Amino acid sequence: MTIKNDQSELRTLRAGGTEISVSGATLADVAKVAGVSPITVSRALNQPHLVRPNTLARVQQAVQQTGYVKNMMAGALASNRSKLVSLVIPSIATPIFAEMVEAVTDTLTQAGYQLLLGLSRYEPWREEVLVETILSRRPDGIIVTGTLHTDNTRRRLELSGVPVVEAWDMAASPIDMVVGFSHEEVGQATARHLLERGYRRIAILAVNDPRGARRNQGLQAELARHGVAVAAVQLMPLPTTLQLGREGLVQLLAQAPDLDAVVCSSDTLAHGVLTEAVSRGLDVPGQLAVIGFGDLNFAAHTYPPLSTIHVDGRNIGTVAAQLLLDRLDGGNQERPRVIDTGFELIHRAST
Amino acid sequence: MTIKNDQSELRTLRAGGTEISVSGATLADVAKVAGVSPITVSRALNQPHLVRPNTLARVQQAVQQTGYVKNMMAGALASNRSKLVSLVIPSIATPIFAEMVEAVTDTLTQAGYQLLLGLSRYEPWREEVLVETILSRRPDGIIVTGTLHTDNTRRRLELSGVPVVEAWDMAASPIDMVVGFSHEEVGQATARHLLERGYRRIAILAVNDPRGARRNQGLQAELARHGVAVAAVQLMPLPTTLQLGREGLVQLLAQAPDLDAVVCSSDTLAHGVLTEAVSRGLDVPGQLAVIGFGDLNFAAHTYPPLSTIHVDGRNIGTVAAQLLLDRLDGGNQERPRVIDTGFELIHRAST
Repeated sequence: MTIKNDQSELRTLRAGGTEISVSGATLADVAKVAGVSPITVSRALNQPHLVRPNTLARVQQAVQQTGYVKNMMAGALASNRSKLVSLVIPSIATPIFAEMVEAVTDTLTQAGYQLLLGLSRYEPWREEVLVETILSRRPDGIIVTGTLHTDNTRRRLELSGVPVVEAWDMAASPIDMVVGFSHEEVGQATARHLLERGYRRIAILAVNDPRGARRNQGLQAELARHGVAVAAVQLMPLPTTLQLGREGLVQLLAQAPDLDAVVCSSDTLAHGVLTEAVSRGLDVPGQLAVIGFGDLNFAAHTYPPLSTIHVDGRNIGTVAAQLLLDRLDGGNQERPRVIDTGFELIHRAST
Repeated sequence: MTIKNDQSELRTLRAGGTEISVSGATLADVAKVAGVSPITVSRALNQPHLVRPNTLARVQQAVQQTGYVKNMMAGALASNRSKLVSLVIPSIATPIFAEMVEAVTDTLTQAGYQLLLGLSRYEPWREEVLVETILSRRPDGIIVTGTLHTDNTRRRLELSGVPVVEAWDMAASPIDMVVGFSHEEVGQATARHLLERGYRRIAILAVNDPRGARRNQGLQAELARHGVAVAAVQLMPLPTTLQLGREGLVQLLAQAPDLDAVVCSSDTLAHGVLTEAVSRGLDVPGQLAVIGFGDLNFAAHTYPPLSTIHVDGRNIGTVAAQLLLDRLDGGNQERPRVIDTGFELIHRAST
């Protein structure tokens, strides 16, 4: 069979299915089209300086024409590097996690790595299943969210020999590396901010999330130190929406009609509380203080602008990915390694 | 060296680095701990019914203890299935894309596949680089965003033999499968909606995105059919924010002080336009109509509630993933395959 340097011919060949593998052109296909031996193609791709310019050009043209792509999986098995890094997060519908994923993806892509994404939906058993499947791909690194894992997840990660970053939290006993901030301290700072401004009937609007729960523990502990009890607590389902924030305020007011502050587990819920408060003619912050968490891009532009906790999801993602890359480059061998990216209480008009 | 069924012993062994691979326990390690041959471990893992219960239990305990995870990459090379599906989207900071990614991830995970995520940042050259790297991993399927690709991207995808879904658009000449809706028709429907309500000084607030541009072409063509020209156009940078929406209205009013309607390329921009209009005391929809795109979860709860175009990102993601899974299961062999998921104009109080 004669093969011309003509794409329509190649497609006919493909349709025949006998010479060119249906799952993509092989090295042998490139060799046929270039009219050289497979070993010459391999040399042209891996050690081009050993191949005559004329031959090199023919091979390069054949690669272009056949759509040949080097099989990285075979390469990965040989080199013991998969060039895959995996990230397991609860959700990406939450903007703060989306920013982190973008930063991780950007940092990894620049270094020639690719991202395998797993969503745990805030369920530890899902994280366990994901971690097992991910480890079976021999990733070069894993980023997980938080420090609360099932015993099995923790043991598998510890024994895997794969570099692990736990992100979004501080850990008493890290698996390996940790990048995040103290949720208890966020809660304490929030409590002090409200107490200093004279608020005493403080309610919590939150979702069922382990890190949010720890912020609320910090808040309650700090309030208790000043002899103040939480006025009401309302848990909302995930994912949070502006509507759930509006409904949340209605439910909190039913529990504690005299409340004067609402601490929300996200800016989205807080935006809903603000919207509901304004629609009821409540004076914010005179009659009601509202504080969020996350400092999402809309927080400075709500009416009135929202006081909140600024945490830099993009920075957490960049640092987490960079820690893995440094480790893979032979640096950053210290274990455990803990990086506190901190947080900032942003005082705007809503408190 | 004697190995006891004791985890602390195992860790010492690991630290020594001589017997257990640093990149995770091997089949041989499991065999040693269980006190059986590697072939027995392999049989226990792959054909458990052939192994005596007693032996099976010992192997299972050893797997647990060593943290052994089967190497899927070797398996993938042998089976010619990577169990990887890749998704290339512009960004996940946009909620509508985040929903799609979640749906794709959920559908794939249930079927035992994993997601390799690439972000093209709305840049065709980045998509080209991503597609090449992704193909080198021999994915079982690829989902790309839109139908506008570089010539190289298109050729590589066509020649790869890998099932391809182009999502979020309709294509005149699909690479393989297409799931989406007509952006021109969205623009036309928006124009008719505003014209029917008496608006004539219609402005566009948009970002530089090829699909948004086609919606605006549809809008302008339909307006032109009714003898109406667009009053002003303002392009904003990505990613869109509430703040950019507020600024956008300011800039549009400077261009056309008498404008009576703003068509926004996203609900986020539209929310900003609403916020700015309300803060200026403009009557919406009496003096100014505002219409968005996406029907994000806040759209029904803004003040006033936002008219917009509902497109179901979750459904697009589910259908795209399902098309690939069906193809991989031997069904859905028709090429090209085009599925129009449609859109809906949601009339709320802002128009």
